[in-house]
Amino acid sequence: MSAAAHALCRALGISLPIIQAPMAGVQGSALAIAVSGAGALGSLPCAMLGPAAIASELQAIRGATRQPYNVNFFCHAPPEADDARQARWREALRPYYAEFGLDPDHATPTPPRLPFDAETLDAIAPFAPPVVSFHFGLPAPPLLQRVKAWGATVLASATTLEEALWLERHGADVIIAQGLEAGGHRGMFLEGDITTQLGTFALVRGIVRAVRTPVIAAGGIADRAGIGAALALGAAGVQLGTVYLLCPESTTSAVHRAALQSPAARHTALTNVFTGRPARAIVNRVMRERGPMSTLAPAFPLAIGAIAPLRAAAEARGSGDFSPLWAGQDTSGCRAVAAAELTRELGADWDATGAKTTRNA
Amino acid sequence: MSAAAHALCRALGISLPIIQAPMAGVQGSALAIAVSGAGALGSLPCAMLGPAAIASELQAIRGATRQPYNVNFFCHAPPEADDARQARWREALRPYYAEFGLDPDHATPTPPRLPFDAETLDAIAPFAPPVVSFHFGLPAPPLLQRVKAWGATVLASATTLEEALWLERHGADVIIAQGLEAGGHRGMFLEGDITTQLGTFALVRGIVRAVRTPVIAAGGIADRAGIGAALALGAAGVQLGTVYLLCPESTTSAVHRAALQSPAARHTALTNVFTGRPARAIVNRVMRERGPMSTLAPAFPLAIGAIAPLRAAAEARGSGDFSPLWAGQDTSGCRAVAAAELTRELGADWDATGAKTTRNA
Repeated sequence: MSAAAHALCRALGISLPIIQAPMAGVQGSALAIAVSGAGALGSLPCAMLGPAAIASELQAIRGATRQPYNVNFFCHAPPEADDARQARWREALRPYYAEFGLDPDHATPTPPRLPFDAETLDAIAPFAPPVVSFHFGLPAPPLLQRVKAWGATVLASATTLEEALWLERHGADVIIAQGLEAGGHRGMFLEGDITTQLGTFALVRGIVRAVRTPVIAAGGIADRAGIGAALALGAAGVQLGTVYLLCPESTTSAVHRAALQSPAARHTALTNVFTGRPARAIVNRVMRERGPMSTLAPAFPLAIGAIAPLRAAAEARGSGDFSPLWAGQDTSGCRAVAAAELTRELGADWDATGAKTTRNA
Repeated sequence: MSAAAHALCRALGISLPIIQAPMAGVQGSALAIAVSGAGALGSLPCAMLGPAAIASELQAIRGATRQPYNVNFFCHAPPEADDARQARWREALRPYYAEFGLDPDHATPTPPRLPFDAETLDAIAPFAPPVVSFHFGLPAPPLLQRVKAWGATVLASATTLEEALWLERHGADVIIAQGLEAGGHRGMFLEGDITTQLGTFALVRGIVRAVRTPVIAAGGIADRAGIGAALALGAAGVQLGTVYLLCPESTTSAVHRAALQSPAARHTALTNVFTGRPARAIVNRVMRERGPMSTLAPAFPLAIGAIAPLRAAAEARGSGDFSPLWAGQDTSGCRAVAAAELTRELGADWDATGAKTTRNA
């Protein structure tokens, strides 16, 4: 293992330089517990949870493992309401409402996507999570200082060199270089133009050269060879999400699991039709017919509301035509095995504490 | 060096597992000679040359080096003329013609972009080039058989797993996995949809797993660490183009060289405004204002004609606003040093014949 990977493992208190990517909507504490227990860093995605639910999940983690773990939050600026734009978006989706026999004004309750704020911070502070990661930038300095005050290591996602330099200047302890191959939401926060987004190869190497901060490689990493290549680029570790989507500890839906195991998984694209922000998903009907990038989709997260009834109706019929089938560009590492087993296999070549310890973890 | 890289070097008769990417319009035999002389594989791009010019360049190579070299051809299907579409494209560019005081019907002679055909084959056969590479697919089977009959190793570009499998079935000896980070034209030939294009990390690993044919990694590789990472992904070698653009042996234009050394080089995009096919270039004025992807651009190579007078007029004023500033997503490896020196530095960690031999080559 490289010196950079050793240093990262020491800093985070883990034995494998692997972070399980936080994936809001498809996993909770169970996956984080399994991964942390195997010597890597499990992550709890909190973007769709309120303070009480977060506290409950943190209690579950604390009750199940003494290993380090990561809690993840979004840092977007909530948009102004824009009724005209919402109406245009509903209009664009209206034929689908008719197809499913849904009232065009039908609403399906959806979890909020709230940015990290003081109330959330108060909910997690008693647990003093050892690692906190942020997507879409960083919280305001006073909030970030409070997180750091309990000794947390702060991770944040960069999708360009400019974002990496910004994060280094603003206090990120570790930078996650989220290459274009990655599944789910692009972490972009200084840019809205998706042509600025760099492939994992160019992004990781470019950021490693540009910053002093340790770099985690993310996007398109699906096996041990991929981890080795990321470390060869100078990354101190890797963040993997897609590989965990079929694990029993994930809450990935049936339609999502089926898509991941089908030939359709070979074609993903960046799309904003599900939430309003560019995110990588397996191409399905609504992406083909209304996207993948739509100028009509309201700003994140306001695009979610109008598509939610369609998703619910389609999924009730066993169809993923309107579901966000998040996935990275390489789904070949997805396996329906226990997350701890998968983690130990992925990390077998890079064990900071010696293979024996890991095998028995 | 990996077993795969050793085998590739033996098969091609080179000592470094590095191929200099053929770059039509910015280099000729001089760059190929320098790179081949340094122990890697130099390439002569022939897509913009007629049979006589190709023969002349091959004579130059043969007179200068006894090392192996590669000749590269395009294999696109020439499109039907489409006057209406041409007229719409000229209309879209008309304001620029007015700005430069150009007659809207002005034409600037441009080199043809002809696909590999029997006449070209007759021109190169006497030289029996040891390596022949193809972009945009492969030539018709009878032509391919004639190339193979003189013992040439055939390389071809794949941008998806499907293309790699197709090339393996149709006789490619080596597959170049051209990741999304790569500069210049995407080699895509089974697909027109750019959302199918994979980042280098996902593409190389995916193709290595899917085929038995040796794989060359291309796209975003800019230094020794990048080469190491590509080999860690299972590639047998790498193809690098962008790093050579500032070498004195390249014919890169002044505006292109200036752009590569400017902060603008950090933002490249896939664009079809220069030729009609998606290709990666540094974002400039015409890409911003008419693209980067335009539904108006005629099919490759018919988009070239209307933009050529604008390019010439702008370059005469020292501006690259209308020039194709081809570049990959990582321009950090571009250095204005002799190509042989650059090649030896890049290959220093992977010399099939021992470092000493290479240093003295």
